Amino acid sequence: MTRKLRAAVLGATGTVGQRFIQLLEDHPWFELGAIAASGRSVGKPYHRACSWKVPEPMPEYARDRVLSPCRPGLEVDFVFSGLPSSIAGEVESEFARAGYPVVSNSRNHRMEEDVPLLVPEINPAHLDLIPLQQERRQSSGFIVTNPNCTTIALVLALAPLHRAFGLKSVSVVTMQALSGAGYPGVASLDAADNVLPYIEGEEEKVETEPLKILGNFKDGKVDWAEFGISAQCHRVNVRDGHLEAVSASFRQRPSRGELVEALASFRSLPQELNLPSAPRRPVVCLDEPDRPQPRLDRYLEKGMATVVGRIRPCPILDYKFDLLGHNTIRGAAGAAILNAELLRTRGMLEGMG
Amino acid sequence: MTRKLRAAVLGATGTVGQRFIQLLEDHPWFELGAIAASGRSVGKPYHRACSWKVPEPMPEYARDRVLSPCRPGLEVDFVFSGLPSSIAGEVESEFARAGYPVVSNSRNHRMEEDVPLLVPEINPAHLDLIPLQQERRQSSGFIVTNPNCTTIALVLALAPLHRAFGLKSVSVVTMQALSGAGYPGVASLDAADNVLPYIEGEEEKVETEPLKILGNFKDGKVDWAEFGISAQCHRVNVRDGHLEAVSASFRQRPSRGELVEALASFRSLPQELNLPSAPRRPVVCLDEPDRPQPRLDRYLEKGMATVVGRIRPCPILDYKFDLLGHNTIRGAAGAAILNAELLRTRGMLEGMG
Amino acid sequence: MTRKLRAAVLGATGTVGQRFIQLLEDHPWFELGAIAASGRSVGKPYHRACSWKVPEPMPEYARDRVLSPCRPGLEVDFVFSGLPSSIAGEVESEFARAGYPVVSNSRNHRMEEDVPLLVPEINPAHLDLIPLQQERRQSSGFIVTNPNCTTIALVLALAPLHRAFGLKSVSVVTMQALSGAGYPGVASLDAADNVLPYIEGEEEKVETEPLKILGNFKDGKVDWAEFGISAQCHRVNVRDGHLEAVSASFRQRPSRGELVEALASFRSLPQELNLPSAPRRPVVCLDEPDRPQPRLDRYLEKGMATVVGRIRPCPILDYKFDLLGHNTIRGAAGAAILNAELLRTRGMLEGMG
Amino acid sequence: MTRKLRAAVLGATGTVGQRFIQLLEDHPWFELGAIAASGRSVGKPYHRACSWKVPEPMPEYARDRVLSPCRPGLEVDFVFSGLPSSIAGEVESEFARAGYPVVSNSRNHRMEEDVPLLVPEINPAHLDLIPLQQERRQSSGFIVTNPNCTTIALVLALAPLHRAFGLKSVSVVTMQALSGAGYPGVASLDAADNVLPYIEGEEEKVETEPLKILGNFKDGKVDWAEFGISAQCHRVNVRDGHLEAVSASFRQRPSRGELVEALASFRSLPQELNLPSAPRRPVVCLDEPDRPQPRLDRYLEKGMATVVGRIRPCPILDYKFDLLGHNTIRGAAGAAILNAELLRTRGMLEGMG
Repeated sequence: MTRKLRAAVLGATGTVGQRFIQLLEDHPWFELGAIAASGRSVGKPYHRACSWKVPEPMPEYARDRVLSPCRPGLEVDFVFSGLPSSIAGEVESEFARAGYPVVSNSRNHRMEEDVPLLVPEINPAHLDLIPLQQERRQSSGFIVTNPNCTTIALVLALAPLHRAFGLKSVSVVTMQALSGAGYPGVASLDAADNVLPYIEGEEEKVETEPLKILGNFKDGKVDWAEFGISAQCHRVNVRDGHLEAVSASFRQRPSRGELVEALASFRSLPQELNLPSAPRRPVVCLDEPDRPQPRLDRYLEKGMATVVGRIRPCPILDYKFDLLGHNTIRGAAGAAILNAELLRTRGMLEGMG
Repeated sequence: MTRKLRAAVLGATGTVGQRFIQLLEDHPWFELGAIAASGRSVGKPYHRACSWKVPEPMPEYARDRVLSPCRPGLEVDFVFSGLPSSIAGEVESEFARAGYPVVSNSRNHRMEEDVPLLVPEINPAHLDLIPLQQERRQSSGFIVTNPNCTTIALVLALAPLHRAFGLKSVSVVTMQALSGAGYPGVASLDAADNVLPYIEGEEEKVETEPLKILGNFKDGKVDWAEFGISAQCHRVNVRDGHLEAVSASFRQRPSRGELVEALASFRSLPQELNLPSAPRRPVVCLDEPDRPQPRLDRYLEKGMATVVGRIRPCPILDYKFDLLGHNTIRGAAGAAILNAELLRTRGMLEGMG
Repeated sequence: MTRKLRAAVLGATGTVGQRFIQLLEDHPWFELGAIAASGRSVGKPYHRACSWKVPEPMPEYARDRVLSPCRPGLEVDFVFSGLPSSIAGEVESEFARAGYPVVSNSRNHRMEEDVPLLVPEINPAHLDLIPLQQERRQSSGFIVTNPNCTTIALVLALAPLHRAFGLKSVSVVTMQALSGAGYPGVASLDAADNVLPYIEGEEEKVETEPLKILGNFKDGKVDWAEFGISAQCHRVNVRDGHLEAVSASFRQRPSRGELVEALASFRSLPQELNLPSAPRRPVVCLDEPDRPQPRLDRYLEKGMATVVGRIRPCPILDYKFDLLGHNTIRGAAGAAILNAELLRTRGMLEGMG
Repeated sequence: MTRKLRAAVLGATGTVGQRFIQLLEDHPWFELGAIAASGRSVGKPYHRACSWKVPEPMPEYARDRVLSPCRPGLEVDFVFSGLPSSIAGEVESEFARAGYPVVSNSRNHRMEEDVPLLVPEINPAHLDLIPLQQERRQSSGFIVTNPNCTTIALVLALAPLHRAFGLKSVSVVTMQALSGAGYPGVASLDAADNVLPYIEGEEEKVETEPLKILGNFKDGKVDWAEFGISAQCHRVNVRDGHLEAVSASFRQRPSRGELVEALASFRSLPQELNLPSAPRRPVVCLDEPDRPQPRLDRYLEKGMATVVGRIRPCPILDYKFDLLGHNTIRGAAGAAILNAELLRTRGMLEGMG
C-alpha cells in the first residue's frame, strides 16, 4: 500500500471520538485528515474543545488540530463517525450522499436492510450489500456500521459456537461499564455503591443485532439467524469493560472440551489478512476460576478480543460462562477501525481520492 | 409476653455479629444476655475488640459488654450464631447438646436432614423437624438455620410464584455486595473498577438451598422441591445489597398481571403474627423502570424484604425480573432474629430458663 | 409551645431540599405546610417530581404532597430555602419582602451586612441584626442564613479555640463529598478513581465566612474577626461527609490537653435550650489514631456535630488535626432547621400567623 | 554500552516487584537475570506465584521465569529490591556484603548515614557516600535507596524552589492512593465511600526524608537541609497517584511567575544524560484550574514526573499548589530503575561481572 488514507473523525470530542483519536495515533494505514464536531466546538483547537476522558493521555498529534463542522467538504478519503444518535442518522446519510465512505459506530443505520452490520471475523460477506446500497441510494458513498458495544463482545463468542453447534437459545445478563454511557453520562451519586438495572434501548439491541450479524447473505439480502436471545442489562461501577454472564443451548450439544476448542481456536479473515487492528485471538479463553475481570483483562489483545472464562455446564440450558469486552475499543472505535481496515483491503475506501 | 428472653450472640465481633448487636438494640422480646467470640477477644470490652463496620453507629448498650468465650455456660435462654463456618459446625453442636436453642446464620448445619432451613414466610411447618432432631440427638437443645444471603432474597420471591404457578426452571445471575465477604474480605484493589465473576461455594448453595426450603414436610422429613436452578454469582463494588437478575419458567404460565399480583400480595405467618422484625410486605414490587437499585432500595421494609422490579416476559423462559435483598439484614442477622421470633411464639426458646 | 409552626421548603426536589423533607419528618415543633419548586415540577406530587438521592428512604408523609411555585402566597409561618444560588437571591428577597421569615441555606445573602450568618452555638447575638434588617428593608419578613457546608464544620471547631486562645492563622485542606455538588453534580467518570483539586468559589467562602461568623455584634453591625485563613478544597469519591485537615496557630499557645478540653467541653446556647436538633456535643473528639472517617463518623450526633481527631503538634503552626462534618445535615438542611429552632425560641417565626 | 546488565528483582511478586517486572520489559540497558521471592513462591513460575495487580497486563517475558530464594548466589550484576520492610533490612545487607550493588525501594536503610537517599535530578553528589560505605562495611557491594513514594513527588517540586528561593516552611496534606498500601492492603469496606486520615509511619518519613535529600554532601557526609515540614497523610479511594496539597514559605519570596518558571524549567543530570527512564520534564506545570487529577495526569511523562497545578498565593505561607506523582512508578520501581541508570553511567554496577 502506497500512501496513508486520510480519515475524518466526526464527533471527535465525544467519548467514542476520543478513542478514535487515541487509536489512530501511529496507525500504519490511516492518518487523521480532519476532525469535526458540532456546535460551539467548531473552530477551536482540539485540546480546548475536548474534555479528555480516555485513560491514556491525549496524543500530541491531535492537540492543536482545529475542529471542522460535520458537513461534507472535508478533504479526506473516508469518515469515521462517533456521532451521538441524535444527529448521526442525518449527518451520516449526508456524507454518504456526498460520496464518502462512512464507517459508523452509531446505531442509527445498523438495522437498515442495505447497510452491513459488519464484524470482520464473522460476516465479511455482508460487504456485498454495499454495491446494492450504492445503487439504491444512487451514490458512490456508502455506510458501514459496527454493532453495539454489548452485542459485539457477545457475538464474537457466539459466532464460532453457532457455526459449530447451532445456537438454540442464549440468555445474557450484562454488567456494563460507565464509559458506555458517554460523558457526563452517569452521575457519581447514581454510580457509587450501586448497580443500575436498566439501560434504555440496550436490551432490544442485544436481542436483535446478533441475529442480523450471524445471518447469511443470499440473493442480495441478509437472512437473519434464527435463535432466541434474552438480555438483562445492568450498569455497574466500572470504568471500562462490559462483563456478560451467558448461558446457551445448542442444536448439537457439544462436550465442554469441544466448546472450549471452538472458542479458543477461532480465527478468521482479519487474522489471515493480518489487519493492523486485528486481535491475534478474537476470543481468549482463561482457565483461572475467577476470570475474566474487567480491570485485569479488558486490555488483552489490546482491547480487541472477547475474553471468556468460567465455562461450565448449565442446569437449565447447556453451558454457561462469563465473557468480557472492552466497550470503547472493540465495542466502539476499535471495531470501526477494523472495519475500515477490511474495506481498505477491498479497495473500497479510495473513491474520494 | 412477660419478660424479655436473654440471647447470646456467638461471633459478636464479626460482620454478621455486628448486625445482630445493632438489630437487637431495643428489641421488644429479646435482650442481650451475653456476647461471645473466640481467641484474643475474650475478656475485652466490645468496643475494644470489635472493628465496627456496620453503617449505623455502634449502639451504646454494647460498647462495654465484655466478651465471653464461645462455650456453653452462658446464662442465656438461647443463642444466635454468627460464627464463621470454620468453627460454627462444632461450636453450635456443642451448644445444642448442652441444651441451648441455637439460631444460626452459618452454613454448616443447613443441609442436615433434621435441621430446619427456616424462612418463616415459607416453611414454618419445617419446625416440626425440631422434636425429631431433639429425639435423635438426645438433647433438649436444637439447631435452626436460615439460608445463605443470596438464597433468601431469591426464595422470598420464588415462594409465592412456586405456590401459584409451579416453578419449572430458574436462572439467576447475581451481583453481590462486598459486605457478604466479611472483613477484611475483598481487597480494595480487587473491588474498585471491577467485577469478580466468582464466589467460592456460592453457586452450589443457591442451586440447592431453595429446593429444601420450598420442600414439603411429610412423614418426618422434608421432600425437596423439584425444579432446575442455575446460578452465576458475581461480586460487585457495592457495600450492601445483593441484586439478582432472574428468569423463570412455570408449569402454568401466568399472565404478567397474575405474576405481579402473586408477588405483591404475598403475606404469610410472620405478617399474621405481626412478629417484631417481620416486613409488612415480604416482597415489594416497584414500577419504575430502573429499580430496584441497591443504594436506593436496600432499606425498604427495614432491609427485611425482597424488592422486585422490571418484571417482563423472557424470550427464553417465561418471565424475567431483577430482585434485591439486604444481605446482612434479611440475608443474615435479621433472618435469624425473625426465626427466633417465630420460635418464641411457639414457646420453643424458654427451655433454658 | 402550643401548635406546630408550618414551614415551606423552597427547592424541595433538590438534594438540600430532600434533606429538609427527611429531617422534618416527625419534627416536634415544625410541620410541612408547603413544598415548592420551580419550573416543570409545579403541580406534580413530590415522589413524581423528585429523583430521591438521600440514603434514607423518602418519608411517606411527603410522597403525595403537591409542589407549589416558589412565590409568596404559601400558607405557612416561615420558609426554608434550599434553592440553587442561580435563583435563591431574588426569590428569597421576594419572600422576605412579603413578610415571611426566610431561613436560607443558599449563599446569596450570607455576606450582606444586615443578614445574620447564624450558627446558634457561636453567634446568637447576630440575631440582633434582624430588627435592623427589617427596618432598613421596610418589611416584617427577614432573611437568616447558615454557612457553607465546609465552613460550618470548620467553624464549630474553631469557635471554642478562638474564644479560649485567640486564633492567629488557620490552614485547611478539604476532602469534600460528592453530595455537596448536588445532582447530577459530579460525573461518575470524573469521580471514580480520582480526586478533583478544585471546587469553584469554595475556597473564597471558607476563607471569609468564618471571619463574619466569629465576629462581634457591636453598635448595630458585625465586627469581623481578624485572623488569616488559607483553604485548599478538593472533591473526593465519598458520598457524604466533608473531611478537613486543619492546622492552626494561636495568640496564646495552649497545651495539647487544654486544646482538647476546649473542644470536647464546648457547649452553648442550643445545648442549654435543648433545641430539638441540637447535638448533645457540638464537637466530638475521638482518640483512635485513624479517626474521624467519613463513613464511620458522619452520623455521630445525628450528623449535627463536628468530629475531631488526630490532634497533635504542628511543626509549622501550633497544632494540627482532622475534622469531619456531615455536609448535607449540619452542613445544610440541619443547620437551617437548628437556626429556625433558635428563632422559634425568640418568638421570631410567628409573624405570618 | 556493550551488553545489557543483568538485574535481579527481590520481592518480585509484591506490588512494587510487579512494577519492576513491568518497567523492565524491553529496557535498553538492563535485562532480568533473576526473580526472587520468599517463602512458598520459590520454585514456582512467576505467573503462578504472583497475583498480578498492575493495570498493564503481565509481560510475556516474565510469565514462566522461576522464582529463586532471596539469597546471594544469583547470577546477576546487581539487584533491585522491592522487599517488604519486615525483611528488607537484613536481606539487602546480606546482598551488599556479598558484593552486590543493591538498588532498593525499601525504607530500612534510607536514613543510614552512609547510604545515599538518591534522586538523580537532585542529589547525584550523594553517590560519593558509596565509596565510604564500601570502605566502612568492607565490601565491594553497597546499598542505594530511593525515597518514600510521597516524599519523592514532593521533593521533585521542592528542589528547584529550594535552590532558587530557599525554603523556610512547607505544609503538605496528602491524598494517597490504595496501591501504596500493597496487596491485599486496604479492605474494600474501608476504602469505598471513605477517606482514612492516618497512614502508619508516613508522616514521619515525609517530614524527614526531604531534609536529607536536599542536604549537601560535604566532608564525607550529608548536611541536612534546614527548614520545617508538616505532613498530614490520608488514604483516598484512588488506585494509583498520590495527590498532595502543599503550601510553602521562602527565604526570598518569589513572584508567582518566578516560582512557575523555576518549576517548569527544572532540568537536571538525568535529562542531560538522557537516561532511558528520565522524564523529559521532571516537573510538569498545568494551567487548567482543576488539575492535576490522579486519573488524568498520573501517566504524564510515563509516570516519572511530578505534576503541579493551581499555583497561587497563600494567605498564611507564601504560595500554595497541588502536586501529583505516580506512587508505584516514580514513587517506587521507576525511581529505583532511574537510580540504577545513573549508577550505570558511573560504571558502578559492573562489579559483579
